[in-house]
Amino acid sequence: MKKVILYIAQSIDGFIASPNGNIDWLNEDVEFSEQNDFGYSNFYDSVDTTLMGYNTYKEILGFDIPFPYLKTKNYVFSRNHTKKENLPVEFISSDIVRFVSDLKQNNGKDIWLIGGGEINKILLNNNLIDEIILTIKTVVLGNGISLFGSNNELNKFEVISSKTLDKSLIEIHLKRKNH
Amino acid sequence: MKKVILYIAQSIDGFIASPNGNIDWLNEDVEFSEQNDFGYSNFYDSVDTTLMGYNTYKEILGFDIPFPYLKTKNYVFSRNHTKKENLPVEFISSDIVRFVSDLKQNNGKDIWLIGGGEINKILLNNNLIDEIILTIKTVVLGNGISLFGSNNELNKFEVISSKTLDKSLIEIHLKRKNH
Repeated sequence: MKKVILYIAQSIDGFIASPNGNIDWLNEDVEFSEQNDFGYSNFYDSVDTTLMGYNTYKEILGFDIPFPYLKTKNYVFSRNHTKKENLPVEFISSDIVRFVSDLKQNNGKDIWLIGGGEINKILLNNNLIDEIILTIKTVVLGNGISLFGSNNELNKFEVISSKTLDKSLIEIHLKRKNH
Repeated sequence: MKKVILYIAQSIDGFIASPNGNIDWLNEDVEFSEQNDFGYSNFYDSVDTTLMGYNTYKEILGFDIPFPYLKTKNYVFSRNHTKKENLPVEFISSDIVRFVSDLKQNNGKDIWLIGGGEINKILLNNNLIDEIILTIKTVVLGNGISLFGSNNELNKFEVISSKTLDKSLIEIHLKRKNH
């Protein structure tokens, strides 16, 4: 059975992006290179599937780099949009909870939940997020898009590990607590 | 010169209390004892002053324990309330930024900023918070009172340390980045 892992960065105050979706603050003061990628390539090698919402997909298309997920099967969830770009993604308009539940039954590597807040919330509240690898960028943003959108349910996790990655980055690795 | 240290706990999603001010979720699944207090008494020994807003003060009065800050000078900020309880606290109605700036000029131990969100925000945005010791409780609350209230300013910190305190607690220690 495949695990769903939410691998994402947020500010101290719990925002994954500025109100307009921007994440420039995340890379400020950080020297990210192929030799020093803070575990990114190891993580990417551990998954064979990514999940993202449509807004997150559009943000990624806006990055000043080629589409970065060429080694995985990539699913974009949207009820209102269809695929336009010639990229290795598949648009999914069916029920996200059923789709992800089925996906987890397969064999293979794990599933990277890329975000954003609304898809994170749905999968969280349906107990479909097995682990969270959260990189905390040590800035206070003040406002923005929340890790789990607007949400009302208590969800518990246990610590697997915590470590300092860089002078402004801390990684915490959590697993869902079984009830 | 005294440092102001925000020593506080929050959920994964950045809330220091439930919407009604409750923090019962913080102590769930945690064995807090005199022998195993996760660094609390060491921290309390390092300060001689506490700062808190009126709502936080009222929350503390509601705890099922005697007033816990007997070894420090304790200031409660309020424009609308005066002291009623026979407790070692002093109510301050004057300008909080000026008051705290002056306090920092004194010699002695450091200053514990207890919270809550609104006083944290004012002191943060006036560059008066020198360090943050943030205990992350690994639950998603979904909603509640934010660490810095509603806020619009970017504030940067640098990592001093990070460590796992318990199976549901991670402590991150940060210092303000000088511009």
